[in-house]
Amino acid sequence: MLYTKHLFICTNQRPEGSRVSCGEGHGLALVAAFKKAIKDKGLNTEIRAQKTGCMETCELGPSVVVYPEGVFYGHVQVEDVEEIVSEHLENNRVVERLVMDFDLLRALKK
Amino acid sequence: MLYTKHLFICTNQRPEGSRVSCGEGHGLALVAAFKKAIKDKGLNTEIRAQKTGCMETCELGPSVVVYPEGVFYGHVQVEDVEEIVSEHLENNRVVERLVMDFDLLRALKK
Repeated sequence: MLYTKHLFICTNQRPEGSRVSCGEGHGLALVAAFKKAIKDKGLNTEIRAQKTGCMETCELGPSVVVYPEGVFYGHVQVEDVEEIVSEHLENNRVVERLVMDFDLLRALKK
Repeated sequence: MLYTKHLFICTNQRPEGSRVSCGEGHGLALVAAFKKAIKDKGLNTEIRAQKTGCMETCELGPSVVVYPEGVFYGHVQVEDVEEIVSEHLENNRVVERLVMDFDLLRALKK
């Protein structure tokens, strides 16, 4: 693996009035906050956080996925970044309260 | 996992004359080709291909990563899409000839 953890943060933005999107929320602020927290802890050679396009999880966004685990976090707020970094990225403890509910996601998509 | 395979294709574009970038190559054409090939095979509910920002593998781009495996492909051409989809995505056989050489990447970054 090139990165021990690779985070993708949706920053997709849709035109106003259309379907909800993560970028309309605060996707870019999340990217900046993750990058800063990872760099401040000196983890930025092995862990990468970056912006990405739509992951089709818009209904529960802003969305973040952590690979290789494939853990999706939903409704992520800037205030949650520190906890995800220190718990999940540093200590491999998934932040359960933010884990996306795929059953709910599928129900909302119908 | 929400997706059995999740592909991220770099479409980052830098101003002309600066460091090389994937989007300057044909990142967007790759995204379209992967999406079409995956849909044509009816794999699009379980496999997702999407555009993403810089993965810091620019020197060997255009770059594509397949998670959860974390396999990075480099210098990916539109003509390579069909092989990656049928070999790797459908049959779990990594396309070795396109796998990114991380030692070379690190040497080029110096």
